[in-house]
Amino acid sequence: MSKVKVGIPQGTRDFPATVVNKRSFITDSIKAVFEASGFQPLETPAMENLDTLMGKYGEEGDRLIFKILNNGLDNPTKKEKAKAEFEKILEGKNSADITERALRYDLTIPFARYVAMHYHELTFPYKRYQIQPVWRADRPQKGRYREFYQCDADIVGSNALLNEVEFAHIYALVFDKLRIPVEIKINSRKILTALAAICNAPDKLTELTVAIDKLDKIGPEKLNAELESIGLNKHQLAIVNNFLSISGNSQEKVEQLKLLMKNNQVGLEGIKEIEFVVNYPFQYRSASLSIDLTLARGLNYYTGIIFEVKAGQVQIGSIGGGGRYDDLTGLFGVPGVPGVGISFGVDRIYDVMEELQLFPATVDSGSRVLFFNLGEAESRKSFELMQELRRSGVGAELFHEQTKFDKQFKYAEKKNIPYVVILGTQELAAGTCSIKNLGTGKQETINQSALSSFNFNS
Amino acid sequence: MSKVKVGIPQGTRDFPATVVNKRSFITDSIKAVFEASGFQPLETPAMENLDTLMGKYGEEGDRLIFKILNNGLDNPTKKEKAKAEFEKILEGKNSADITERALRYDLTIPFARYVAMHYHELTFPYKRYQIQPVWRADRPQKGRYREFYQCDADIVGSNALLNEVEFAHIYALVFDKLRIPVEIKINSRKILTALAAICNAPDKLTELTVAIDKLDKIGPEKLNAELESIGLNKHQLAIVNNFLSISGNSQEKVEQLKLLMKNNQVGLEGIKEIEFVVNYPFQYRSASLSIDLTLARGLNYYTGIIFEVKAGQVQIGSIGGGGRYDDLTGLFGVPGVPGVGISFGVDRIYDVMEELQLFPATVDSGSRVLFFNLGEAESRKSFELMQELRRSGVGAELFHEQTKFDKQFKYAEKKNIPYVVILGTQELAAGTCSIKNLGTGKQETINQSALSSFNFNS
Repeated sequence: MSKVKVGIPQGTRDFPATVVNKRSFITDSIKAVFEASGFQPLETPAMENLDTLMGKYGEEGDRLIFKILNNGLDNPTKKEKAKAEFEKILEGKNSADITERALRYDLTIPFARYVAMHYHELTFPYKRYQIQPVWRADRPQKGRYREFYQCDADIVGSNALLNEVEFAHIYALVFDKLRIPVEIKINSRKILTALAAICNAPDKLTELTVAIDKLDKIGPEKLNAELESIGLNKHQLAIVNNFLSISGNSQEKVEQLKLLMKNNQVGLEGIKEIEFVVNYPFQYRSASLSIDLTLARGLNYYTGIIFEVKAGQVQIGSIGGGGRYDDLTGLFGVPGVPGVGISFGVDRIYDVMEELQLFPATVDSGSRVLFFNLGEAESRKSFELMQELRRSGVGAELFHEQTKFDKQFKYAEKKNIPYVVILGTQELAAGTCSIKNLGTGKQETINQSALSSFNFNS
Repeated sequence: MSKVKVGIPQGTRDFPATVVNKRSFITDSIKAVFEASGFQPLETPAMENLDTLMGKYGEEGDRLIFKILNNGLDNPTKKEKAKAEFEKILEGKNSADITERALRYDLTIPFARYVAMHYHELTFPYKRYQIQPVWRADRPQKGRYREFYQCDADIVGSNALLNEVEFAHIYALVFDKLRIPVEIKINSRKILTALAAICNAPDKLTELTVAIDKLDKIGPEKLNAELESIGLNKHQLAIVNNFLSISGNSQEKVEQLKLLMKNNQVGLEGIKEIEFVVNYPFQYRSASLSIDLTLARGLNYYTGIIFEVKAGQVQIGSIGGGGRYDDLTGLFGVPGVPGVGISFGVDRIYDVMEELQLFPATVDSGSRVLFFNLGEAESRKSFELMQELRRSGVGAELFHEQTKFDKQFKYAEKKNIPYVVILGTQELAAGTCSIKNLGTGKQETINQSALSSFNFNS
């Protein structure tokens, strides 16, 4: 067997214990809020039929889907066909004879596929959450991976605005729990639709939305240049700029919006909706909720309220976002299923928590106690005592071999184990053991029977 | 956009909430024991470089690896090359120009690759656990999937037998926790090696091991036929049968083994090792540990003690297994790393727990409380009270729209929510709310301020 180069694919990551534990701290916190809020977990397979995924993410998205090569193409009965079909691949087309399956690109399409398949068994409004990896053949760069986790929650089968309120509060509960100060921003696609109408450019809605979505990154000057390039005239530009300059608290923004929207029905509906959400009682230690009219969300399928969450105190993109859509499952033959969904950006939340040093010291769940191995009979007794600690949930280890104190101490130090238990010939005879706190250096001798009630957590 | 057929790939599964919760109950129990025993989590990417995987699982294994088609094959600069390289695929060979990456086939090879890559940063003995899905292009059948979870723990960088003892106890702790009665069986590859030597057929060790491994399924007669077919004569057959018929308790088996192994050094070493493990104090409610000389484990890389776990009271294959190996990372250029590892068969454990009805009633973590939606002002108050419950960890929901009692009751019933809270005009004015237990029908009215201390768990 030839010696292989050791590495992992570009854009993928190994997660060692410290990272797994911190990531779990984040996802467990989010899960707890989802569960307390009546959401139920769903898990879908990593692979979907290629058909299910293709054509859902635009031309660019289609190109970034990882496709799985069918097995058994060397089967003599399939070879000729495969050879011909491979030509399609070379033309940038798809062929189920070459790749029947692909890796999921996001969690929304698999969720839609699931709801369509099980529509008649589900209780609506159906509230699910899903935390699983997705794969994209994007060019890897800082903060962009080819395998990364998405963390989504959706409520489908209900038009009630209470669901939007629900999600604003779920964001607040989660970030309160994680102690990340955040601004939750909302806007409405209906207001943007009305803006396009007021500009007399309803056909330019998508381009307008995409342009406004970039404001954050490109600034107002370049935005104006972009708006001109999509064909807006001076008068139209003035309306858009007037809209984007609306400021003040939520109530003041709403008042100015009402003046601008005049009799535009869709716009007034949008205003009413965001008013409903921002006027709901909202009191959290570290989360604020406000209207941000420059918020657009690039993705196209939103139709009502949209959300975005920004972390305070750090310069980083949004750490969460979502919105309302009209039609989740139409693509899969089940029309008329509206919903709202949000997602959490786990990788960015991780970076924020590192930067603000918000991970609790207890997040590293290594052993609390190392029993020294000091001989055959001694280690048997230690093993027995250790199992008792483990049963009561205290992480404990027995050094694997009888060796010098020095080596055993070093293992405890390297693994950050705060206590060692020493049980040698003398202690064995006396029915005692010595406990040493490696942090303080303090050592005490106790009866073996008292070990399981010793506090190893301080 | 064409309407697509809705389905998922053969051999894959969607896991709805009830299944996710039960699976999590199993894996959380295992995790807790791993963590208490000083094991740390590791997660590796779903994709590995094709090189890393190929040639590690035998010819049959290689054929079952899911390969990922490279993206951008339609790029004009790559087309010609791709076309030529595809010929290799049609010949059953590999080509990094077509598939550079593949989905992991198990957790052992990625673990070995990780240890080789990070050898100088790790503290040995290195104890890791890993619970992640793997993918195999096997023909799907009952209980065999193309995507399934593996759950492994290994201790590497130590020859100490204490590690084997450790794993026997870890199995016991886990199955005690899950309340599954089990027999943990051990044997040693050294004893099987000695058996082949005593038969004067050391070159037939692998075939002998593979044959004995099947005894369970095929019975003694067919085993003898198979042993004859690999070329054992009557005399050799008699030795093997004599070996396989050794019975009694552990001590009796050891005595008979010693007679049979006579002066075979490897055999005597193997006996000493299993004696060490079975003579370690071992007292568990529902787990027994014993020597099973018919245990062989099909896989080839084991070199010392081997394990297998059988569930009592149900007819099902093994629900766990593992053993000692000499060389984890030699294939990746780092020789001299021995270890022991075990795995848990999560899918089978799930089936056993269903059959024996061992999942606790609390495993379904749905909401405990549904607040009825009885009007604008009423629902605002309800929302506020609901958020308080959620903060204290009680799963609660507010019905999404104001509608008939009947419909709201039906939602609670369908979702198995045991309590409803009714807060109408009267209650709003009085600062009270009514709580109805849907199981008992009992209804009581309390002050809103007392709600957060109400016991919704009974």
